[in-house]
Amino acid sequence: MQKQQIGVVGVGVMGRSLALNFESKGFSVAIYDLSEEKVNELLANHHGKNIVGTANIQAFIQSLERPRKILLMVTAGVITDRAIESLLPYLDKGDILIDGGNTFFQDTIRRNKKLAEKGILLIGAGVSGGEQGALKGPAIMPSGQKEAYEAVEPLLTAISAKVNGEPCCTYIGPDGAGHYVKMVHNGIEYGDIQLICESYHVMRSLLGLSANELHEVFKEWNQGELDSYLIEITADIFTKIDEVTGKPLVDVILDRAGQKGTGKWTSQNALDLGVPLTMITESVFSRFLSAMKDERVKASKWLKGPSQNKVVGNKKEIIEQIRKTLYFSKIISYAQGFSQYQIASKEYNWNLQLREIAKIFRGGCIIRAAFLQNIMDAYERNPQLENLLLDSYFQSVTADYQEAAREVVSAAIKAGIPVPSLSSALAYYDSYRSAVLPANLLQAQRDYFGAHTYERIDKQGSFHTEWLEK
Amino acid sequence: MQKQQIGVVGVGVMGRSLALNFESKGFSVAIYDLSEEKVNELLANHHGKNIVGTANIQAFIQSLERPRKILLMVTAGVITDRAIESLLPYLDKGDILIDGGNTFFQDTIRRNKKLAEKGILLIGAGVSGGEQGALKGPAIMPSGQKEAYEAVEPLLTAISAKVNGEPCCTYIGPDGAGHYVKMVHNGIEYGDIQLICESYHVMRSLLGLSANELHEVFKEWNQGELDSYLIEITADIFTKIDEVTGKPLVDVILDRAGQKGTGKWTSQNALDLGVPLTMITESVFSRFLSAMKDERVKASKWLKGPSQNKVVGNKKEIIEQIRKTLYFSKIISYAQGFSQYQIASKEYNWNLQLREIAKIFRGGCIIRAAFLQNIMDAYERNPQLENLLLDSYFQSVTADYQEAAREVVSAAIKAGIPVPSLSSALAYYDSYRSAVLPANLLQAQRDYFGAHTYERIDKQGSFHTEWLEK
Repeated sequence: MQKQQIGVVGVGVMGRSLALNFESKGFSVAIYDLSEEKVNELLANHHGKNIVGTANIQAFIQSLERPRKILLMVTAGVITDRAIESLLPYLDKGDILIDGGNTFFQDTIRRNKKLAEKGILLIGAGVSGGEQGALKGPAIMPSGQKEAYEAVEPLLTAISAKVNGEPCCTYIGPDGAGHYVKMVHNGIEYGDIQLICESYHVMRSLLGLSANELHEVFKEWNQGELDSYLIEITADIFTKIDEVTGKPLVDVILDRAGQKGTGKWTSQNALDLGVPLTMITESVFSRFLSAMKDERVKASKWLKGPSQNKVVGNKKEIIEQIRKTLYFSKIISYAQGFSQYQIASKEYNWNLQLREIAKIFRGGCIIRAAFLQNIMDAYERNPQLENLLLDSYFQSVTADYQEAAREVVSAAIKAGIPVPSLSSALAYYDSYRSAVLPANLLQAQRDYFGAHTYERIDKQGSFHTEWLEK
Repeated sequence: MQKQQIGVVGVGVMGRSLALNFESKGFSVAIYDLSEEKVNELLANHHGKNIVGTANIQAFIQSLERPRKILLMVTAGVITDRAIESLLPYLDKGDILIDGGNTFFQDTIRRNKKLAEKGILLIGAGVSGGEQGALKGPAIMPSGQKEAYEAVEPLLTAISAKVNGEPCCTYIGPDGAGHYVKMVHNGIEYGDIQLICESYHVMRSLLGLSANELHEVFKEWNQGELDSYLIEITADIFTKIDEVTGKPLVDVILDRAGQKGTGKWTSQNALDLGVPLTMITESVFSRFLSAMKDERVKASKWLKGPSQNKVVGNKKEIIEQIRKTLYFSKIISYAQGFSQYQIASKEYNWNLQLREIAKIFRGGCIIRAAFLQNIMDAYERNPQLENLLLDSYFQSVTADYQEAAREVVSAAIKAGIPVPSLSSALAYYDSYRSAVLPANLLQAQRDYFGAHTYERIDKQGSFHTEWLEK
C-alpha cells in the first residue's frame, strides 16, 4: 500500500487548511483527529483528493511513510503535550514532529530536548496567516534540529507564501527559536493593530471622519509607505454595512478586545531580557483597558476631560500628519521588536538572521507589508545593526516625520483622545536619542536610601556617598 | 540558660539592622551567619547588648526559646531555599520562620505549603525602608498562617515604623500575600522615582534650572500635597557637592540605572492578571533605556530632534504646572497599583484590605507620603472601590490638574524631552475615562483575518462576518 507523505494531527480551522494546502501542492496527506466526525466531514467535503483520514491513532501512524513527518495543529499547552504522548508509543527513531501551534518557546525547548532523548525530532514552527494564509500560503518560522528541517523543507516551502518567487519560510535556528520569532511577530501585530486603531480614533474623534471617508483614507495610505495587509483590510472593513441596522458594521461592533497570550508573552520576555519594548506593551495594556468596558462607561461620566476637544487646521494636511505619525510609530515598534530578536538571539544562542526574518514576513503573515523590504535592506547594509533607527533609511524617515508625530500626539493629548502607543513610540524615540537621561538622579536616590552605589561620568568604578553627612 | 526570643539568619546590612532594632525594643536576639567573621564583628561592635551569635547552626537553634521564631534575611531565591534546608533538621513542629527578603511571592506560596506539611510555619514578610528603616522602623508586610502571625506580631509591630502611634505592620493575608504586596510596593516605588526624574529632566532641560534652584523647588513641593520621603531626599540630593570636582554631586553621577527585579515582576504579573499597569511598566523600561548609555550617545548624534526646544512663559507658573503634573501622574500610578492589588486579591483568594495596606505604607517605607492618607480615606469611604480615580477626592484633584498635565506633557513632546511615564499616565487617564475606545476596529480586524468573532453594541452574543463576501 502507498504511504502518505505528511500527517496532520488536529483538523480545526488551521489544521484543515494546512492539510488542504499540502494536498494542493501535490503531497499525499493523512489526517488524524480525536473526533471521527471532524475527520469524516473533511474527507466528505474533499472527496477525490489525495487525503486519507482516521480517528484511530495506530492506523494514522501506519498510513505514513518513514521517517514519518507529522504536523501537530492542536491547542498550545497541555493539549500539545497530550498529543505528543499519545503519538510517542507508535513513533520510531528519526520520525519528525512539527508543532505548528502558538506554543510558548520555552515549552518547545523543553519538548525538543526530551524527544531528542528518544530519537524523535521536533520542529517548532510558527505559522502566521490565519485561515486564508494557512490554505493559500502562510509565513512559516521553523526551528529545531537542522537535519530535521532539511527533511521537511520541501513540504514547508511548498505550502508557504511566496514573494517574488521566494518562499516565506526559512530555517530560523535551534529548538524554540521559531516559536520565539512567531511570538514576537504576534507582539508586533498587536502594535500594528493598536497604531491603526489610535490613528482611526484620532480621525473620527478629532476630525469627525465618516466610515466612507476613513475607507478612502486607508485605501490611499495603502498605496504608499504604509502598503500592508492590515491597512488593506482596514480600508475594506469600513465598506462593510451591517445588515441589521444599515450602519457601517464597524460602528456596531463592541469596543472590547480579546487577546490570546502571545502579545503578553512578548512583553514579559522583553522584561526578562531588559529590552525596552514600550510600544508593544502599551498595545497589550490597551486591550486590557478595552476589556474594562463597564468601568470605562462609569468613569466617562465621572472623570473630567479637557475643555478644548476639536482641532483647527486643514483636514487634508492633518490626515497627512496622522499618516506620517503612524509610519513613524510603526518604525519605532519594529525597531523595538527587532532589537528584542537581537538580544534574544544572544541570550538563547540562536544566531537569528534578522534579514531572513524580515524577508519571510513579507508574505503570508498578518504583518506583511512593503515596509519589511526596508528592514531587509537595512540588515543587508549592516547585519550587526544594533537598532533599526541607526540605519540610514530609518534615520531619514524619522527625521522627516518626527515633527508631525509631535504635532499629532500633542493635539490628541490636548483634546483628551488617548494615544498610548503613539505617545509611547515618541517617548522611546526621544529617550533613545538622549545622550543624557535623568537616571543620574535615580541612582542618587537609590544610593541615598539603599546604598546601591552609583557610577560617575568622569571615572570608572562604583561609588557610595554618605548622603546624610554634611 | 536563658533562651533568646528571636533568631536572625544572615547579618548583611538588612539582617544586622533588624537584629539591632529588635534588641533596642527589649528583645533578646540570637544571630547566625555562615561567616564567623561577620558574626564576631557584629558582636564586637555591639558589646553589652542582649545579642548572642554563632556560625554554628545547631548552637544557634539551641539558643532560641520555643516555639522558635527565626527571621531569614538572606538573598532571595536559591539561597533562601538553602538556608531553609539547613535549618530544617533542627526545627520542631510549631517553629516559625519569617522570610524578610525580597522573595518572589510564588516561591513563598510554594515554601509555605511545603513547610506546613512538616509542621513548620512560614511567614513571608515584605520589609521596606532600606538600612535606616530596618534599624529605626521599617514598614512590614507579613503573611502566612494567621496563628503564626499572632505569635510574632508583638515582635514585628515593636520594630516597625509608627505613624500617629500606630505600627506600620499588619497581617496581610495567607501565604505569599505579604511578598506580593511588597513586590507591587516596589513597582510603585519605580513609578514614583521615574516621575520625579522626568519632572527634574523637564525642569533642567526646558527651564534650565540649576541644582540650587531644583533644591528649592523640591523643598517647597515637600511642604504640600507631594510631601513624601522621596521628594524630601530629592531636595536633599541637590545640595550635595562632589568633593572631587566641586560640582553638585548629582551632575557627576552616570545616568545608567540598575534594577533588582521586583519592578519587572510587578509588570509581568500585571500582564498575567490583565491589569493595565502602564505607568509603572514604562518606569521599568526607562531603567532599561538608561542602561543603554553607549547606544544612546551614538543615537544622539544620529537621530533628529525638534527645532524648537525651549518653552516660553512664566518660569514660576510652569514649575507649578509641573508640580500638578507630577501629582496627577502619581495618582494614576497608585490607581493602577492598587487596582492590581484588588485583582490579585480575587485571583489568589487573599482578601487584601487595601485601606490597611495604604495605612502601613504611610511610615517606614521608601514610598511613605502624606498622600497615602488620602488613599486610606478613599477605601474608608468605599472598601469596594474599583479604582482610586472613582473616589471623590481623586476625581476632584485629577479634574483640576489634568489640563496642567496636558500642557506639560505636550510641551515636553514638542521640545523633544522624553516623558514616557508622564505621558503614559495621561494616556491611561484618557483611556479609562473613554466610554468608547477604538477596539471595535481591532475586533473587526481580528474577525476578518482570524475569525475570532466579535460582540455587538446592540445585542448579546458572539458574531462572525464573512468580510470578503460582497
